[in-house]
Amino acid sequence: MDSGALDIFIAKHLPTAQHMQISVDDYDGFSLRLHAPLAPSINDKLTAFGGSLYVMAVMACWGMVYMRCVDYGLDPDIVVAEASIKYLKPVTGDIVSSSLVVEEKHWEHFFDRFEERGKAKINLCSEIIVNEDVAVRFEGLYAIIGVK
Amino acid sequence: MDSGALDIFIAKHLPTAQHMQISVDDYDGFSLRLHAPLAPSINDKLTAFGGSLYVMAVMACWGMVYMRCVDYGLDPDIVVAEASIKYLKPVTGDIVSSSLVVEEKHWEHFFDRFEERGKAKINLCSEIIVNEDVAVRFEGLYAIIGVK
Repeated sequence: MDSGALDIFIAKHLPTAQHMQISVDDYDGFSLRLHAPLAPSINDKLTAFGGSLYVMAVMACWGMVYMRCVDYGLDPDIVVAEASIKYLKPVTGDIVSSSLVVEEKHWEHFFDRFEERGKAKINLCSEIIVNEDVAVRFEGLYAIIGVK
Repeated sequence: MDSGALDIFIAKHLPTAQHMQISVDDYDGFSLRLHAPLAPSINDKLTAFGGSLYVMAVMACWGMVYMRCVDYGLDPDIVVAEASIKYLKPVTGDIVSSSLVVEEKHWEHFFDRFEERGKAKINLCSEIIVNEDVAVRFEGLYAIIGVK
């Protein structure tokens, strides 16, 4: 599916994400995968900085909500309301974050609520995988607070 | 107290924090306050990007642990193991994050453990205040995993 809208959004609106060279790796309507090189996000241990890993994790889910809204025909205002993250292993190369698939009924509920109230919330998780192990596990609560 | 070690650390090791123009505003041995301008961290709503707010919050506590270790005479390897964040209000101007003071006995315990085992953990919180209201509330678990 066409995920160009998110790359354009980052290029237009998010200098922190631009500096990190975040780009969409894949979007199939159910999950979004982002990619960033290590160099702009490196730390003193020559692994990925924990703050940058959070940005990759929060953006995989934010972008997933954004793309589902675009697919639905909206130009949405989306915010993250709260989030938690666990750092399980160091990330020693390119950073790849993926939103986890949720059951379609959660998206249906999200858009039903939006139609009723003009606002809606959804919980999404993402992971950063290194050598088939989960290096970072993230969960966030996202809200659509309006449309442009 | 001299907080120059943290500004030097950022300039040497953390390109994401450099791009955000993070600098030490104040350090008194009990709390650390960081400052960053809005522009590099702006989002589509012309407020601060949630990912950048996390970086400011996680770095206020990370920097606090770092500075206490420097004061103690160490050049430490510190990591954040897990964290949670709540976004309560938008941040519409400069971003100022402060670590919250913890009782001295927690620092004593932290350094006692480090002396015994070469490793230790501490929980710290930080806040980002806007117009006297808490805009962001953060809690993180930090570990010293060795020294250089």
